[in-house]
Amino acid sequence: MLINKYPQKEEWANLVQRPTLKREEISKTIEDIFTKVQKNGDQALINFNKKFDNIEIQDIEVSENEIIKAEKLITEDLKKAIQQAKENITKFHASQIVDIQKIETTKGVICWRENRAIEKVGIYIPGGTAPLFSTVLMLAIPAQLAGCKEVILCSPPDKNGNINPAILYTAQLCGVTKIFKTGGAQAIAAMTFGTESIPNVYKIFGPGNQYVVAAKEFAQNYGVAIDMPAGPSEVLVIADEQANPDFCAADLLSQAEHGSDSQVIFLSTDNDIFNQTIEEVNQQIKALPRNEFAKNALKSSHFILINTIEEAIDFSNIYAPEHLILAVENFENYIPFIQNAGSVFLGNYSCESAGDYASGTNHTLPTNGFAKNYSGVSLDSFVKKITFQNLSKEGIQNLGKTIEIMAEAEGLTAHKNAVSIRLKQLENDKK
Amino acid sequence: MLINKYPQKEEWANLVQRPTLKREEISKTIEDIFTKVQKNGDQALINFNKKFDNIEIQDIEVSENEIIKAEKLITEDLKKAIQQAKENITKFHASQIVDIQKIETTKGVICWRENRAIEKVGIYIPGGTAPLFSTVLMLAIPAQLAGCKEVILCSPPDKNGNINPAILYTAQLCGVTKIFKTGGAQAIAAMTFGTESIPNVYKIFGPGNQYVVAAKEFAQNYGVAIDMPAGPSEVLVIADEQANPDFCAADLLSQAEHGSDSQVIFLSTDNDIFNQTIEEVNQQIKALPRNEFAKNALKSSHFILINTIEEAIDFSNIYAPEHLILAVENFENYIPFIQNAGSVFLGNYSCESAGDYASGTNHTLPTNGFAKNYSGVSLDSFVKKITFQNLSKEGIQNLGKTIEIMAEAEGLTAHKNAVSIRLKQLENDKK
Repeated sequence: MLINKYPQKEEWANLVQRPTLKREEISKTIEDIFTKVQKNGDQALINFNKKFDNIEIQDIEVSENEIIKAEKLITEDLKKAIQQAKENITKFHASQIVDIQKIETTKGVICWRENRAIEKVGIYIPGGTAPLFSTVLMLAIPAQLAGCKEVILCSPPDKNGNINPAILYTAQLCGVTKIFKTGGAQAIAAMTFGTESIPNVYKIFGPGNQYVVAAKEFAQNYGVAIDMPAGPSEVLVIADEQANPDFCAADLLSQAEHGSDSQVIFLSTDNDIFNQTIEEVNQQIKALPRNEFAKNALKSSHFILINTIEEAIDFSNIYAPEHLILAVENFENYIPFIQNAGSVFLGNYSCESAGDYASGTNHTLPTNGFAKNYSGVSLDSFVKKITFQNLSKEGIQNLGKTIEIMAEAEGLTAHKNAVSIRLKQLENDKK
Repeated sequence: MLINKYPQKEEWANLVQRPTLKREEISKTIEDIFTKVQKNGDQALINFNKKFDNIEIQDIEVSENEIIKAEKLITEDLKKAIQQAKENITKFHASQIVDIQKIETTKGVICWRENRAIEKVGIYIPGGTAPLFSTVLMLAIPAQLAGCKEVILCSPPDKNGNINPAILYTAQLCGVTKIFKTGGAQAIAAMTFGTESIPNVYKIFGPGNQYVVAAKEFAQNYGVAIDMPAGPSEVLVIADEQANPDFCAADLLSQAEHGSDSQVIFLSTDNDIFNQTIEEVNQQIKALPRNEFAKNALKSSHFILINTIEEAIDFSNIYAPEHLILAVENFENYIPFIQNAGSVFLGNYSCESAGDYASGTNHTLPTNGFAKNYSGVSLDSFVKKITFQNLSKEGIQNLGKTIEIMAEAEGLTAHKNAVSIRLKQLENDKK
């Protein structure tokens, strides 16, 4: 922990720095993987499974049978929990559907927008010890709500050639159309180009290690869109004298356990809360199975005593945290001043885990300061908004002159002609 | 013109191909320009002005005085036209502001989203013969509506060291905060890093040549967001027997005059309309000042006779045009089937120029097939949507168990603890 008491504003620029990411030179590797997948399709994926995941599978598509078996492998409690989370996430994301609103900007000129689903989307779910079925919920639910026709999922197989049953169960529950056993950059390449088994997609979502992140960026060169740029996970907690140090410590640790590169920042206006929270972090960390991660994350994490909540919010806006917890009595008063954050948790009982799993908000959020210029994933991430317009004869007569003058001033004669020829025709019709 | 009559579906894959872009190896140049601007700031920009634009300027910021002078240099007619366009664009983009909608997903769990403006945005406007003040309208109006605090504009100076007065007039009219005389990749670098005069920004908008496009992509490596990937402009026109060949020809040419790499596609179900449109294109092109561009563009443009409007829409969805004109009698019937397009113009009097200038819709649209996965610019492009949530004591009691079960199944004990510690406390409070 890096402890700072009442730092001067001049020091803030240092305190808001993220730990520098060691970005290894992996672009050559990524390029090579993309070339192989583009050229050899499924066979390349089978070879990469052997090479990276140490498993030989002939059929990379998950079968109907595997999905049926998966459902039997997970407890009723977990199924119910996943279903309640699904209900809440569905409710919140369904509320993001907006009605078509036709606007008559000039008499006879009607403009509007309509949503269309991105037809084919791909979800990447990392492998490893933690089976991130919650991320399946966060990505497959809005995809289904948006009406995406093809929603495919790629995830690396485990040492027995399987994908975790909770991931399979959640995927089928949320309308994923096809699931494939392939991971890493090769999965991203497969969704970019398509293979014999895997359809290409127009947009790729989901977290991953540095190879996956680099592969997603690389995929953009082939016209594929991605959810957002990525970085390690973060939380910033602001606590006043009414905050609960036990809760604050638990929230900070729930972020720190994600990985050694996670960052947590704690800001308090109250000396007692400040000291008790630090003490409590040191206590609670002992019992955590993932405390090696948490300990490493804390090494580059700031605990800052600060004068006022206003100042703390200013600091937070400069840092632009992925998650912001306002453990502050009158949190309503501060909402208008929150400028840069991914998702905000208000009051003592709104822990970040609620949003990570089940409250309904999306947990795919901008990290690494990207909350200054990016939104988290929402229903909007799965649609395009197409503009429509209809000009009646009256409409072009009312607006035509304006368009002619502007087109002429820009030196675009054919643009002007497209109007003039219509106005002339209408003039002739009158005669 | 490439003429095709009733092509088989198997041939479509070739017909929807864009002309391949000659993407020159310019990344080294871009990197070099970025390094110089990052290191030498304003002085680098002054040097680049000398080198690329052949003009020596000491003060790259446009002065108050220049803006006042600009207003006097443009005609009253043009001012009025710009003002009417501004009114319509404002009306349409203001309609995109959505009310905050609080959703209770579980009793005691309230979630919502709020818009926050991206604080600092940059607009790039190319130089050259056509002064694109219409693009200033399209980018500065939604920026101002969104509430962006800093809206800066960069454009290359002409041979006298000036920026076109129509650009200056429109910029001040739409709330641009600062205007700078710098163009090309160096302008993008300046907005990325900031210089002594130019503030850095979080998102960069606007069109440009291949250097500007490459520089915007490169800027993303420094955490800057951009409006969208870019390609040459396109229109696809679908005409039935009720269409007007003169209008269709004028619309096709208004796209073709943009540049030699523009693409226009014409699809008709009616043999007469088809032939007359081709004839009319050949007539109208003669009088165009920019007919060299138009002629070149037509070389790679397809004129296709097709069986039905349904088929034409299918073709259009595969091509995913930036602009789609439906010169079709019962256009309403076909709207639900339009899947991939940037902006759609309905009926015989809705020419593309209307949307380019003044109807109210935005003209910054996805090209090069990106209409499959990107929307055009809108108010949304200038805001981030932050999610908020508040769980009451009742809320965490209702949802806590679900979160605990899910966190445990993902092996994230600290995530679970953040809930358990709160539930325990509430249990103790009851005693």
